Amino acid sequence: MTPWYQDSQSDQSQILSSRVRLARNIKKYRFGQKLTPEDASLMVQEAQDAVSRAGARMFHQMDITALGETEQKVFIEKHIVSPEFLKGTLPQSLLISDDQNISVMLNEEDHIRIQSVQPGDMLAQALEKANQIDDLIEESVEFAFHPEFGYLTACPTNTGTGLRASFMIHLPCLERSDGLKKLLPTINRVGITLRGLYGEGTAPMGSIYQISNQTTLGKSEEEIIQGLQNVTNTVIEKEKSAMDKLMSAHRDDTENTIYRAYGTLAYSRKMTAKEAMDMLSLVRLGYMADLLDKPKPIKQIYQIMMEIQPGHLMRLAGREMNEAERDSARAKYLREIFS
Amino acid sequence: MTPWYQDSQSDQSQILSSRVRLARNIKKYRFGQKLTPEDASLMVQEAQDAVSRAGARMFHQMDITALGETEQKVFIEKHIVSPEFLKGTLPQSLLISDDQNISVMLNEEDHIRIQSVQPGDMLAQALEKANQIDDLIEESVEFAFHPEFGYLTACPTNTGTGLRASFMIHLPCLERSDGLKKLLPTINRVGITLRGLYGEGTAPMGSIYQISNQTTLGKSEEEIIQGLQNVTNTVIEKEKSAMDKLMSAHRDDTENTIYRAYGTLAYSRKMTAKEAMDMLSLVRLGYMADLLDKPKPIKQIYQIMMEIQPGHLMRLAGREMNEAERDSARAKYLREIFS
Repeated sequence: MTPWYQDSQSDQSQILSSRVRLARNIKKYRFGQKLTPEDASLMVQEAQDAVSRAGARMFHQMDITALGETEQKVFIEKHIVSPEFLKGTLPQSLLISDDQNISVMLNEEDHIRIQSVQPGDMLAQALEKANQIDDLIEESVEFAFHPEFGYLTACPTNTGTGLRASFMIHLPCLERSDGLKKLLPTINRVGITLRGLYGEGTAPMGSIYQISNQTTLGKSEEEIIQGLQNVTNTVIEKEKSAMDKLMSAHRDDTENTIYRAYGTLAYSRKMTAKEAMDMLSLVRLGYMADLLDKPKPIKQIYQIMMEIQPGHLMRLAGREMNEAERDSARAKYLREIFS
Repeated sequence: MTPWYQDSQSDQSQILSSRVRLARNIKKYRFGQKLTPEDASLMVQEAQDAVSRAGARMFHQMDITALGETEQKVFIEKHIVSPEFLKGTLPQSLLISDDQNISVMLNEEDHIRIQSVQPGDMLAQALEKANQIDDLIEESVEFAFHPEFGYLTACPTNTGTGLRASFMIHLPCLERSDGLKKLLPTINRVGITLRGLYGEGTAPMGSIYQISNQTTLGKSEEEIIQGLQNVTNTVIEKEKSAMDKLMSAHRDDTENTIYRAYGTLAYSRKMTAKEAMDMLSLVRLGYMADLLDKPKPIKQIYQIMMEIQPGHLMRLAGREMNEAERDSARAKYLREIFS
C-alpha cells in the first residue's frame, strides 16, 4: 500500500511516474459553469455513491475544502488535486485510494475526473486501473457520450477519450544543453506538450517535466498512449545521449558539481525550494550516471523533492511558517537525510 | 619542536602569528648590488660561520637554490624565504632552526636577515629570539652601524633598527564590511602597513593579512613593537565588533554561509586555491564565533591553508602537477580533513 513516490521504481530511470486522467460527465447534469449549486450538490452525491459502489473497499471520501490551508497545499504538492479544484465554490468531493495512487475529483472542471498514477514507466497499468474505476462508475450513472465525438467534456480540448496521459520525467542533461529547446517544436507538432512540475505556466524545478498528450479527439486511448510513449522514448534517448556527452566531455566538472550539491544538501542551514530542487536534481543525476559514491538516501529523491515543498514542511512542523522559517526547516530536513 | 603553524595557539584568536625580521650587514663588505661575486662568496661563508657558531646546535644550513622548484615553492609558501631570495644570482645561504621558527637568509637584500616567528600574539618573544641570534652573530662579525642612524642597510627604509615586526591576522568580518577600507588611512598615517598574505602587491587570500611597521629609523625596537601592538589591538577590536555586528544582524545567514563552506570543503572534487582559502577562512570564523558545531580538524586552519598551496600539494604528490591536477589534489586533501 505505498504511494508511487515511495516506490523505488520512481527513482530508477528518467521516468519517475506514469499518470492517466479520465474526464467524465454525467449526462443528466449541465457542465461546468452552467451547473447550478443545487444540481452540483445532487451530482456530487450521485457520483460519490457511484464511485463508492465502484471501489467501496479502496476509496476514502474527503471534503478537502474543509481542510486547513497547509493540508490543502500538501494535496496540491502531491498532485492529487489541482489548484483549480480548491478554488471551486460549488459542492465538491475528493475520493482517494488507500495508497493515494487513484483519486477521483468530483466537480472540478468536469463532473468526474479519475486520476491514476504508477511509479516508473507503467502507463498501460495506470490506464488499466483508471479504466477499471471508470467502468465500475459507468454501471451506476450514464456518462455524456456522443457516438461520433466520444465523451463530452466541459472544455472541448478534452472531448473524445477524455484521456490525458503523462509521464513525469527528469531531464537534467537535456536542460543543461540546448537540446530541450530544440526538441520542443517537434514534440508540439505531434500534439504532445512538455510542462514544468506544477503544470502549465509553471517554471520547471529540479529539471522535472510533465510530458503529456494535448489532443484527445479522433484517437483511441491506445493510440494516445502509444504516441506519448514513442515521443517520450525519443526524449529519454536524447537525455541519455546528452548525459553521455556530458560524461565524456565534462566528467570531472560534472562530478564536482554533483558532489558539491550533495555537500550543500548535507550542510546548509537555509535553503529555498528552488535551490533544493536544483541540488536534488544534481544528486539524482549523480546516482543515475553512477557518479556519486554515496549510499542512496532512505527516501526516493522525488519523495524528498515533494517533502521540501511548503505544505509538506509546514505539516511536518505542525504549524504555519513564513518563508524564512521554511528555508531553515527545509535545510534541517535535508541535512537529516543527507548527513 | 613544532613549527609555529602546528601550534594550537595559531588558531585561537585573530592573531595567527608574530614575526620579527632583523636586517644586518657586515661592515667590511659592500651592500646589495655593489657586492661582487667574490666578496659575496666570502661574505656568505663568514656569516655562515658566525651563525653556526652562534647557534650551532639549532641551525641547518641549506643551499636552497640547489633544491627543485617544488621545494623552493614550499619554502616561499611557508614564508621562510622571500621570492626575491630565490631570484638571487650571487652566492647565498639559508640557515634554519629545527622547528623552522628561526631562519637566517644570507645575501638576500641585506647580508644577513634574521627571521623569528612565534604562534599567536607573542611578538616580544619573537623579538627576544631574533635578538639572541643577532647578539651571538655580532660576537664574530662587525655589523655596519652608524652611531646616529643605527644599523645600515641596502635599502634606506630598513636603516635604524633594521627591524620589521609583523602580525599575521585574520580579518574576515572587517573585510566583509567596509571597515577595513576605513581603517587603512589611519593605520598608514602612523607608519603601519597592512598587506596580503604573500606580501606587498599580493591580493589578500582567506581574509589573512600581515600588519607591520613601515619605518625603522628614529625609533627604538621597543617603540616599534609597542606601536605595532597598539595599532593591531585596535584592528582586532574593530574585527571583533564587526563580528558582533554580523552575529546580531545576520547570524542565520552567516551560520548558513559557514556551514556551506564546511560542506564545500568536505565534498568538492575540484577547488582553486582562492576558493579553498575563502572556504577555510569562513570555517575559521565559524570556530572563532562559536557558530560551527563540528569537531576541529586535526590540523590548525592556517596549516591547512598553507598545505593547499601549489608547492605543498606537489611535494605531497611527489610530482609536478598542472593547475587542473592541483585543483583535484587540493579538493581530495581537503575532503580527507573535513569529511
